Amino acid sequence: MEKIKVAIIGYGNIGRGVELAVQSSPDMELSAVLSRRDPSTVKTRTDVQVLSVSDIDSLKGKIDVVILCGGSATDLPVQGPQYAEMFNTVDSFDTHAKIPEYFAAVDRAAKAGGNVSVISAGWDPGMFSLNRVYAEAIVPDGEGYTFWGRGVSQGHSDAIRRIEGVLDARQYTVPVPEAVDAVRSGTCPTLTARQKHRRDCFVVAAEGADLERIRREIVTMPNYFADYDTTVTFITAEEMKRNHSGMPHGGFVIRTGKTAGGAEQSIEYSLKLGSNPEFTGSILVACARAAVKMSRGGQVGARTMLDIPPAYLSPKSAEELYATML
Amino acid sequence: MEKIKVAIIGYGNIGRGVELAVQSSPDMELSAVLSRRDPSTVKTRTDVQVLSVSDIDSLKGKIDVVILCGGSATDLPVQGPQYAEMFNTVDSFDTHAKIPEYFAAVDRAAKAGGNVSVISAGWDPGMFSLNRVYAEAIVPDGEGYTFWGRGVSQGHSDAIRRIEGVLDARQYTVPVPEAVDAVRSGTCPTLTARQKHRRDCFVVAAEGADLERIRREIVTMPNYFADYDTTVTFITAEEMKRNHSGMPHGGFVIRTGKTAGGAEQSIEYSLKLGSNPEFTGSILVACARAAVKMSRGGQVGARTMLDIPPAYLSPKSAEELYATML
Repeated sequence: MEKIKVAIIGYGNIGRGVELAVQSSPDMELSAVLSRRDPSTVKTRTDVQVLSVSDIDSLKGKIDVVILCGGSATDLPVQGPQYAEMFNTVDSFDTHAKIPEYFAAVDRAAKAGGNVSVISAGWDPGMFSLNRVYAEAIVPDGEGYTFWGRGVSQGHSDAIRRIEGVLDARQYTVPVPEAVDAVRSGTCPTLTARQKHRRDCFVVAAEGADLERIRREIVTMPNYFADYDTTVTFITAEEMKRNHSGMPHGGFVIRTGKTAGGAEQSIEYSLKLGSNPEFTGSILVACARAAVKMSRGGQVGARTMLDIPPAYLSPKSAEELYATML
Repeated sequence: MEKIKVAIIGYGNIGRGVELAVQSSPDMELSAVLSRRDPSTVKTRTDVQVLSVSDIDSLKGKIDVVILCGGSATDLPVQGPQYAEMFNTVDSFDTHAKIPEYFAAVDRAAKAGGNVSVISAGWDPGMFSLNRVYAEAIVPDGEGYTFWGRGVSQGHSDAIRRIEGVLDARQYTVPVPEAVDAVRSGTCPTLTARQKHRRDCFVVAAEGADLERIRREIVTMPNYFADYDTTVTFITAEEMKRNHSGMPHGGFVIRTGKTAGGAEQSIEYSLKLGSNPEFTGSILVACARAAVKMSRGGQVGARTMLDIPPAYLSPKSAEELYATML
């Protein structure tokens, strides 16, 4: 069986995670990494060829699927529809409020090109979304909750870095144990943002900076921190490097409720991730496999993980899965 | 939108669970319960009409899907292929070793009749199978574990009831906490049956029965108990009724492993079920909805939960799910 040929566009943390995940996939091979940077300056982990994104036309007909590893803010809204017209694609678009609009744009392009594009793949949106849908379909009379962490939030870390006098920052989102326990108990509590998550910030400040002002600017920042209990700890650049250079994350999706006979039911899905980008990259690669299977089966258009038959994510045949995994 | 019309064949614990779950489904209605018993002796919980299974032809063309609630040992091997030729069907066939053979028989019949038949639906096989497949597809370099319980095993309870001098029995399968902890720690331990699960038995003995003989017959019973640490507690019929008439169950599917960059990743799915048959019935009803959607989309043949796009299980439209659940 010929291997599925994959290209990566965008070589940041997620792109590197995808590169590693293709290595763990016996049925796939990486054909190229495409970057906006000068290819000669990009050193990949597997020594796969690096091309300029402007050379993407040269891959037409030579690869089966492109994994778009750019950001949701500015990269994907352009790249998603652009490349969906040329190739089967997978991306991790995660601006929740804009997903329907993004889906429509990618769907039009994918249909025009006769391709399949899986959007918003990853763990949230992605595996957590799946678990919300499965749990609600089984226990409609109940409440669903999602907790994130303990893990690094890039968006919140970036927000701190923009404050004057901050050299570096890392923000951990932390589920409040009492809230998790209350949800697990099946009481279906109503919880505020503050009751569900705490925010722990580690900050390297410039010499002589006003630490109290930085702390106040963080904890009062609207949307990001004002609605949460936030701690700020100042550390040295060396401590930052030593203790906070990993990208752990995780979380829980919990649904509790009652079936119609009155019995209490509880469903929980939880992730503890040593590396968020490696895990996300692994999901994107499984979805790339599924996109190719759907495309070969004659499907066209945009899809999400909610639309993928689970067996399509596996390199094993349906028959092998029936015999070993059911 | 017209409601999906459902019939139930077999009115035991699962059949009653399905009946209740249809009530919680805004897009479905129950048309009939079919039983091998004299219909006049069957009292349903919702007063839906009861027909004799011999009258099933009268439902042809009037219902969208039949949920088969018979047992896997003798009922389903006959009923599955028989009814798959007449209707879209869903069942909970759970004899793991015979699933490929059963799939083939139902697939032939469903294709002959132009129907879709979802086999082996429930939580194991079913939701647990899904989670094994998802987790292995994302973290191929790792180990997967399934723990069951604490919950009542009908098969093991029945095995005890067949011992001379036993009037009634209830067997709880209990995961060993040390084993669960070892698995969660990510060490990928090799565990024997005895290390993973304990078996707790509650027995009502006939007056004057030799309790020590009964205990010995239980704990030494091959396949069922000999390979486990088993406790036997003799109780009165009244205690049995008061403390052991529920049908709780649950369990965990855990996979731990490493992504290709070396990061440790852990995925866990867990269920705590107040009523096993009500939960299983709810899953069968969600799969009935999916079977009808697949059939209306032009599919024919046997399917498992591994083949169902998750969105198909929900009464909500794909667009509504994209907007609210991703």
